[in-house]
Amino acid sequence: MQDFLNTIKPIIWRDGRLELLDQRLLPATTKYIMLTNVESVADAIRDMVVRGAPAIGITAAYGVVIAAQHRYSVSVSSWKEKIVQDLELLTAARPTAVNLFWAINKMHQLIDEIKGDPVELLLAAAIQIHQDDIRDNRIMGDLGASFIKAGSGVLTHCNAGALATGGYGTALGVIRSAWQQDKLNNVYADETRPWMQGARLTAWELLQDNIPVTLLAEGAVSALMTAGGVQWFVVGSDRIAANGDVANKIGTLAGAVQAKYHGIRVMVVAPTSTIDMAAADGGKIPIEHRSSDELLQLSGQKMAADGVKAWNPVFDVTPAALIDVIVTEKGVIEAPNTAKIASLMDN
Amino acid sequence: MQDFLNTIKPIIWRDGRLELLDQRLLPATTKYIMLTNVESVADAIRDMVVRGAPAIGITAAYGVVIAAQHRYSVSVSSWKEKIVQDLELLTAARPTAVNLFWAINKMHQLIDEIKGDPVELLLAAAIQIHQDDIRDNRIMGDLGASFIKAGSGVLTHCNAGALATGGYGTALGVIRSAWQQDKLNNVYADETRPWMQGARLTAWELLQDNIPVTLLAEGAVSALMTAGGVQWFVVGSDRIAANGDVANKIGTLAGAVQAKYHGIRVMVVAPTSTIDMAAADGGKIPIEHRSSDELLQLSGQKMAADGVKAWNPVFDVTPAALIDVIVTEKGVIEAPNTAKIASLMDN
Repeated sequence: MQDFLNTIKPIIWRDGRLELLDQRLLPATTKYIMLTNVESVADAIRDMVVRGAPAIGITAAYGVVIAAQHRYSVSVSSWKEKIVQDLELLTAARPTAVNLFWAINKMHQLIDEIKGDPVELLLAAAIQIHQDDIRDNRIMGDLGASFIKAGSGVLTHCNAGALATGGYGTALGVIRSAWQQDKLNNVYADETRPWMQGARLTAWELLQDNIPVTLLAEGAVSALMTAGGVQWFVVGSDRIAANGDVANKIGTLAGAVQAKYHGIRVMVVAPTSTIDMAAADGGKIPIEHRSSDELLQLSGQKMAADGVKAWNPVFDVTPAALIDVIVTEKGVIEAPNTAKIASLMDN
Repeated sequence: MQDFLNTIKPIIWRDGRLELLDQRLLPATTKYIMLTNVESVADAIRDMVVRGAPAIGITAAYGVVIAAQHRYSVSVSSWKEKIVQDLELLTAARPTAVNLFWAINKMHQLIDEIKGDPVELLLAAAIQIHQDDIRDNRIMGDLGASFIKAGSGVLTHCNAGALATGGYGTALGVIRSAWQQDKLNNVYADETRPWMQGARLTAWELLQDNIPVTLLAEGAVSALMTAGGVQWFVVGSDRIAANGDVANKIGTLAGAVQAKYHGIRVMVVAPTSTIDMAAADGGKIPIEHRSSDELLQLSGQKMAADGVKAWNPVFDVTPAALIDVIVTEKGVIEAPNTAKIASLMDN
């Protein structure tokens, strides 16, 4: 059986340095960037060298290790005080994915307990977060695949794959597991404007594992669903509210609305670190807006005339009512609501 | 009051030649292509130098004039026999927009009646089709605008503007009329992948008339509708079936499904030449698929890895049930169905 686990490594810790696969250059170029200070880690998150909620969290955890290395080498006595600004820098890198704050908080709690040189302990914790993420993806892959009947077609949006996680992927983890189980007739990826994660990342990633994938424009999603090629719309998430509302890449709500109309089921795959119990519903989740240039230009070429404005929210919120299943490493929730989410989180 | 009629001329007949604004080069470059033989007219339609159902029809009518000039100059006796292959060449240029066949049929009927040199009569007929289209767009603009309340926002898809017609536009004609009447707070255009008609053409065209326009990704349509910025989704059509099903640019069905979910009204604006009474419903309308390269490459740059397949239907069919109003030059139809369409066409 194909393993899938060693094909794509978006985040590597090696020789005391963090290496990130530069996802801005894919699929044309496979190049790693070496990061040796916390500022460059924050920049890499902000500029989307690395993206995807779980991958951002893992990267930030390694970023805390790098910050501690530096702060402790400068001052054994005041490093815990000084590192707070590094944690704040990392926290401010992107606003929507809650896994970023989850990972930084986890590392911060550990810092509070540490005595002496922190590097070994913090690195062990970051590696644990990374390895747990991969393990959880495998668990979610199998849980999600159990919902998919043989002979099905699936559509995914954005990239919730190995590139967006420690490895294997959330939505693409389910697709990998279902593919291994010979259940999938068709795997479709939409392009995902403006950043083209579907075209550039998901299609590339699935091809690395020899899973055939067909790309389509987001405008063609309803046409695809009408044509009968898909039974599931499978996506990841950047933050899930306590009532089951799901923030994810812009276009997820669009896809879920269309899925509901066409009778296609909607599956959200995300670790419990993505669930934000402090957000009662999706309205409480901050939505990042990025530069108009992401729409007005493409690869340096002008896409619209000078003077055109653009509206560029990069996440949207899908109400729980449009979601059939949320898959987490702790178990699945069908027809999510506040009580079911609370019960899962108490487990 | 702003006239809007002299700003943008996609199709010009001058000095016995057809000049087409090359829409593939917009918004960066405004350049006209001169066409002097029927093959180049068919190529221009196929290669989307000119696009938009009414504009394709008008272009084909002028193409018939050019064909007749040549055929009659070669043989006064056999030109009517020989021109049939030119009509077939034009007919085969694109499959979905019925206005192409409507205009060619209209010119063909005239050819059957002509005695002697055909050029003057055919040219007069082509100019009439062109002028009637502009007049009809003005009528539809006012009819459509009457549905829009002051303080509204509208979203349009693709380009159903001056560039897609003889001038003024169908969907953008309604937006121009509503704008003149001070009814519009916001005009939004989605990008319209893969050809980017919204970004490249609609945004450019509205700016020429100083109508402020905001661009968004198609994935952001549901987010926009949730945010409350729009009350109408206004589009053109390439072919309307006898039951009111509407074929239009891929993504129209996606937009209409989302509009229905979010309580946004849907308006389709098209002349009666777009209505195909021979197509009982949308299932009878042939849908053009174009090259995968439109998705896999953009401006010569690779968007997806080698080996990725793409599915690229460039039109979809929106069922009549999702459409609130169809606006034609003969009048409007709310909640369209077979009986209402038949009654309109009998007028």
